[in-house]
Amino acid sequence: LLRPLAPGHVTIDGGLWARTADVNRAAAIPEGLEQLEKAGNLRNLEIAAGRAEGEAIGPIFADSDVHKWLEAAAWEYAREPDEKLLADQLRITELLAAAQAEDGYLDSVPMLRKVPRYSDLPWSHELYCAGHLFQAAVAQVRGTGRTELLDVAVRLADHLVATFGDGEGQLREVDGHPVVEMGLVELYRETGTRAYLDLASWFVEARGTGIIEGHDKAPTYFSDRVRIREATTVEGHAVRAVYLGAGAADVAVETGDAELLAALDTQYRAMERTKQYVTGGLGSRWEGESFGDPYELPNDRAYAETCAAIGGVQWAWRMLLATGEARYADQIERMLLNGFLAGVSLSGTEYFYVNPLQLRSDAHAEEDRSPAHGRRSWFSCACCPPNIMRTVSSLTGYLATADGASLQLHQYAPGTVTAPLDGGTLRLRVETSYPDEGRVALHVEEAPDGETTLAVRVPAWADGATLAGEPVQAGTYARVTRRFAVGDTVVLDLPLAVRLTSADPRVDAVRGAVAIERGPLVYALEQPDQAEGAVVDDLRIDPAGALSDEFRADLLGGVTVVHAQGAVVPGPDAGATTPYGPATTPPPAPVRDVTLTAIPYYAWANRGPQPMRVWVPTR
Amino acid sequence: LLRPLAPGHVTIDGGLWARTADVNRAAAIPEGLEQLEKAGNLRNLEIAAGRAEGEAIGPIFADSDVHKWLEAAAWEYAREPDEKLLADQLRITELLAAAQAEDGYLDSVPMLRKVPRYSDLPWSHELYCAGHLFQAAVAQVRGTGRTELLDVAVRLADHLVATFGDGEGQLREVDGHPVVEMGLVELYRETGTRAYLDLASWFVEARGTGIIEGHDKAPTYFSDRVRIREATTVEGHAVRAVYLGAGAADVAVETGDAELLAALDTQYRAMERTKQYVTGGLGSRWEGESFGDPYELPNDRAYAETCAAIGGVQWAWRMLLATGEARYADQIERMLLNGFLAGVSLSGTEYFYVNPLQLRSDAHAEEDRSPAHGRRSWFSCACCPPNIMRTVSSLTGYLATADGASLQLHQYAPGTVTAPLDGGTLRLRVETSYPDEGRVALHVEEAPDGETTLAVRVPAWADGATLAGEPVQAGTYARVTRRFAVGDTVVLDLPLAVRLTSADPRVDAVRGAVAIERGPLVYALEQPDQAEGAVVDDLRIDPAGALSDEFRADLLGGVTVVHAQGAVVPGPDAGATTPYGPATTPPPAPVRDVTLTAIPYYAWANRGPQPMRVWVPTR
Repeated sequence: LLRPLAPGHVTIDGGLWARTADVNRAAAIPEGLEQLEKAGNLRNLEIAAGRAEGEAIGPIFADSDVHKWLEAAAWEYAREPDEKLLADQLRITELLAAAQAEDGYLDSVPMLRKVPRYSDLPWSHELYCAGHLFQAAVAQVRGTGRTELLDVAVRLADHLVATFGDGEGQLREVDGHPVVEMGLVELYRETGTRAYLDLASWFVEARGTGIIEGHDKAPTYFSDRVRIREATTVEGHAVRAVYLGAGAADVAVETGDAELLAALDTQYRAMERTKQYVTGGLGSRWEGESFGDPYELPNDRAYAETCAAIGGVQWAWRMLLATGEARYADQIERMLLNGFLAGVSLSGTEYFYVNPLQLRSDAHAEEDRSPAHGRRSWFSCACCPPNIMRTVSSLTGYLATADGASLQLHQYAPGTVTAPLDGGTLRLRVETSYPDEGRVALHVEEAPDGETTLAVRVPAWADGATLAGEPVQAGTYARVTRRFAVGDTVVLDLPLAVRLTSADPRVDAVRGAVAIERGPLVYALEQPDQAEGAVVDDLRIDPAGALSDEFRADLLGGVTVVHAQGAVVPGPDAGATTPYGPATTPPPAPVRDVTLTAIPYYAWANRGPQPMRVWVPTR
Repeated sequence: LLRPLAPGHVTIDGGLWARTADVNRAAAIPEGLEQLEKAGNLRNLEIAAGRAEGEAIGPIFADSDVHKWLEAAAWEYAREPDEKLLADQLRITELLAAAQAEDGYLDSVPMLRKVPRYSDLPWSHELYCAGHLFQAAVAQVRGTGRTELLDVAVRLADHLVATFGDGEGQLREVDGHPVVEMGLVELYRETGTRAYLDLASWFVEARGTGIIEGHDKAPTYFSDRVRIREATTVEGHAVRAVYLGAGAADVAVETGDAELLAALDTQYRAMERTKQYVTGGLGSRWEGESFGDPYELPNDRAYAETCAAIGGVQWAWRMLLATGEARYADQIERMLLNGFLAGVSLSGTEYFYVNPLQLRSDAHAEEDRSPAHGRRSWFSCACCPPNIMRTVSSLTGYLATADGASLQLHQYAPGTVTAPLDGGTLRLRVETSYPDEGRVALHVEEAPDGETTLAVRVPAWADGATLAGEPVQAGTYARVTRRFAVGDTVVLDLPLAVRLTSADPRVDAVRGAVAIERGPLVYALEQPDQAEGAVVDDLRIDPAGALSDEFRADLLGGVTVVHAQGAVVPGPDAGATTPYGPATTPPPAPVRDVTLTAIPYYAWANRGPQPMRVWVPTR
């Protein structure tokens, strides 16, 4: 088992992640608090605390957005203390404590709407809100050292332990939306209270037995059709499925349940092999926000909810800790830098709920989730924005782990890593312009006395990588074991040649098309970067043509763009009566050659909604 | 303007349509009545009539299924009188009359649920139910000569005329689901009451002004974002959009509104050019059962609701009558023989709500609309089955029209056409095995005295067609004008060579794939017809290979199958970790050549749900 490093043991002080974290702190988190005021989430708590009058506003799970914001603020405080950030947390924590019922129950909207407790658990999200509260409480302890929210969490968790289970008079029900499992295990880790782990385990085992029946949606939607121990793939609502996977992994690790862990590994692999976009995006269907059938991966109608990428990262992280397999760290990188990061604007304050891989010229802007209208500053169902905030605030947590006398570096960003190892502390200064450049220099600033192993991930795409000048194998951890001394430098060199990617022929949506990748980044053609009059919908790429890259400090916060050779084919024939015709008619011949310019997918839609595509037809 | 022929003036007595009509009469309509009993639709009316006690069951628009069944029964009675068929109609008609309120209002579910009248018109479907009642009433008059339902309809229509409009105290609202427009115009045609036409026109004009605001869905969903007079394409809920188009066409024709008709023509063309499947299917999205963006036409997740194909036929028919353009008759044929007919089993009693163009091997069966579980005998939302029944019962109506001294033949099936023309009656005996064979022989059995024009549609795909031995132009009506005599025979010969069809490159979903067509039929590869071990998902077609056809009397009620040359590529690599890889890796090489066998798309899923695809990759 790999061991995460405590907050503060990893810092990032430059590059893409630092820029992202900076706007998250300076803009997103303060504006998020205003949104919670404006949207009524905090007002709901005030009413529940008896300090205001009125009716609950917003979705039934409105409290969870508050909890996610609290978690973000806690991690952010750990990155750099700030008086107001702590004051806001404590003020809201106090409000939660005041709203909490005598017996520990807490969820303001059901309370105010007088929904009988747990009367509609498949839809009421009461345990979902509890799970997010637990996560926030643990973050508060770890990030600020304060225990006020933990007290609230423990009272609520004790209430859940008393309420749910197989015992006499207990409820045999589960929440329609998983997350409480992860929250309970974290609370167990923080408090040592075994009952929390047991309840998490109970929720994981009860699911998949059709325990959620007759609630409008099929059991599939709720990840309740197959026991997670028996499932061989993921299905149904994507966020629910991956949150459940992550919570079950927590349970498997803490209970030493190798069978459950193996089942989760199988499911994760099936997801990666048949149900994941090249961007790491998860969930093909708008209908039910769900996974599709294997290889059903439409680009235009990709749902790929930002929260699903977050849940995917959380699940992969737990699998990485449990297995130490590089592919899980590859997954985390793919999801974070592409499917997840596309969910937030460069300004940090405008969001996508849905992350398609293609937007056509004539796309019609529809309700608030529709990407065609561009990013939004908030949503009527606002799960994604504060979920992004807490994820960005805790990014440093994904960079490194320790294990006995070994330090593992999973992700690369400039900064420092301080790892307490068996023989003492290993502190590294990481110098890199990754992912723009592939050189990662690790300077030893403090070293243990004895032999230490430094394990660095070589991504699966990094053929030709070297560590300390020696060739290393892509898709593994390359290791250096020795006695390190202050002043030592170990250099990892990852080749970032632009590459074209194609898909299994079963992915019908991308037949005859390729994606552009460079290092961990997936690229996209967006309209503003193309030659005059070259409409994105009409572009073709020459897969045999030259590929080049160029760092553009002036563009989109500083990005490496990729140039490729291609052509423009004629636009739609206005006189055509049908899009169908004899196959013997040759396809429209290109009207001119053109250089295509691709930007990192994560940076799209920062110049308004524009035609965009990740997969580019070759002919 | 072309003029429809009265029921009874066209008969079909053989071939595909006769088989379809026979099971519709013998099985679907009687079972439909049982379903209406079982599902509670008739019980609702009994309660509303004060003859039973209880609560309303089913969706708010449950009455409309009764009305559609009544319409089917009326047309069926016109095809061939039957005592029980009439008795059932009159019994239900009497029940409707008994349930009708004093002032003419009638809609049992809102009545029983005590929904205040028209308080939630965007969702209550009260006018939708009225529209279907009007259509049924007119069918009853024309099909049986009885006027009982017409009396009910007139009372309801008078109530609507008094209630809706711009007058003092009148409601300025429209129904969320169009159909009342068509119903009112038909009622106007039957009764001559101008107020019905005026109200239909008012409903058409009021729409598209955001008149439906704040009802959960965006105005787009309700076809309420743009005035129909100004719209340039179709959008939103597909059935609503095409029903509105059909109703607006009725209004345009009856009011002589050339501007409105031209706008509808533009919209229809845009739909055909950018939003229609090769099967004629309409509506790309499950989400909102709606049209997608232009060229967004996924095969696996095609929604292509059976009712949308029906509405598409109704709209095209009205445009055909108004414009006389062959392409509208082509459209009717494409929709009827493919996207529509796939919605019903060969037995007539099992239905698809959703009509995809691809079903993968590992498709997971979900709730009752999901095609992966196969056809169903009824649905919780049962709009499609009785809509199919009334369409099949009235198919003869689409075959021919008359106009002064001209008879137009639009569709081909064996039987008789009796047209009252200016100079007398022209009666033709049609002999054909179309669409299995392309020869259509028209034998004159009665002829007017003077010169008569016989216009026969030459479908757009029928290059090389001849009429009376002379070459005629595909995509037009070929005409013979002369004095016909009893015993004359005119032969239309339509070449039915198998052809491969490709799509505009903007239809990303079918890049690198072709569809097989033969005459008016679109073909599909379905698993049971393929060579041992040749999984449909793994098939490729050689577009340069030989194509042949073969009539198989033993198969699927008698179908012409198509054979093509192709290959099997290897199935999924179980060891693959991702579906994505370097584009430099050649695609999997075929493991063996194989002969592909395609069946008409309409006949798929009659051997259980099986892997199927219309578009076959070429490489």
